[in-house]
Amino acid sequence: MKNVNVSLQILPAVPENKIYDVVDKAIEYIQSTGVKYIVGPMETTMEGEYDVLMEIVKKCHEIVFEHGAERVVSVVKIDAKKNGVTMDEKIYKYR
Amino acid sequence: MKNVNVSLQILPAVPENKIYDVVDKAIEYIQSTGVKYIVGPMETTMEGEYDVLMEIVKKCHEIVFEHGAERVVSVVKIDAKKNGVTMDEKIYKYR
Amino acid sequence: MKNVNVSLQILPAVPENKIYDVVDKAIEYIQSTGVKYIVGPMETTMEGEYDVLMEIVKKCHEIVFEHGAERVVSVVKIDAKKNGVTMDEKIYKYR
Amino acid sequence: MKNVNVSLQILPAVPENKIYDVVDKAIEYIQSTGVKYIVGPMETTMEGEYDVLMEIVKKCHEIVFEHGAERVVSVVKIDAKKNGVTMDEKIYKYR
Repeated sequence: MKNVNVSLQILPAVPENKIYDVVDKAIEYIQSTGVKYIVGPMETTMEGEYDVLMEIVKKCHEIVFEHGAERVVSVVKIDAKKNGVTMDEKIYKYR
Repeated sequence: MKNVNVSLQILPAVPENKIYDVVDKAIEYIQSTGVKYIVGPMETTMEGEYDVLMEIVKKCHEIVFEHGAERVVSVVKIDAKKNGVTMDEKIYKYR
Repeated sequence: MKNVNVSLQILPAVPENKIYDVVDKAIEYIQSTGVKYIVGPMETTMEGEYDVLMEIVKKCHEIVFEHGAERVVSVVKIDAKKNGVTMDEKIYKYR
Repeated sequence: MKNVNVSLQILPAVPENKIYDVVDKAIEYIQSTGVKYIVGPMETTMEGEYDVLMEIVKKCHEIVFEHGAERVVSVVKIDAKKNGVTMDEKIYKYR
């Protein structure tokens, strides 16, 4: 199965001064999975198999609820190419 | 399991004059599933169980590839609330 | 100048039970401008000139701050075509 | 005026093998403006004044049309806080 890129921006409905703490929990989880990822200012992008990444997205929502969010709105971007796509092909010129 | 809202904007890399045809195939599939949905100018929003809707999102990507896309970029928005959320609570005032 | 479509999803950092009230203020403003618009479950889409619509987007942010938000995260989608684009060409089959 | 963060993902309707070339033109323009920015795998995020950044977003659309796109779909995310927001406060732990 070819690799895709999935970006996750997760916006928990918690008091403003708690947002980063709760989002950090989701990022910690992503780090713990071993997938390739880049944390950006608005979203974390991952590279891997579609099903693996979307399972991580689901788990991130659960984590955010476990940490006190009443509601979660998130934006998930998917970039899929027939022969696979890497994060590196899109950013190597700029790093 | 509580209902969530999932919006899907799917952008197939096909010649510009084929975009609507290909996107229509994904919408036809959504219609065939029986979930509650609203087609908007930029995205189709669905209401139902998280796993059911995300499985539909996955299938929509497959359909777009089957109809000639070399690449698909999509934006998936998820709105989840502890006690469930309906599309209607967000738009009833405006319909 | 050709018409574009601009969608706005505005997420104010306010207590969860205040979100709809604050978002409604932004929608009321959009209604007051006279542009063509459709309110959807995740975003409001407008049709008109680029500069006019982006000025409305800016004003919506100001309104949300005036109604108590400490922070606003929003997602703005733009669809622009050389010869203009209508909302209707994308949804007429589904209404 | 307080700084905001604006992310731009620009998707030109050009043949798939031209996408990166066209998007690079927009990124080159962003670099030429002198604003603080980070290129990510799905979007470029900028930090600065709202009006300055949104003017750059507009110019990026024009550049993409000048480089052969018939159509452009883009996703612009805005993060605004009463007392300003930096990209660094969101990513320093992860760099």
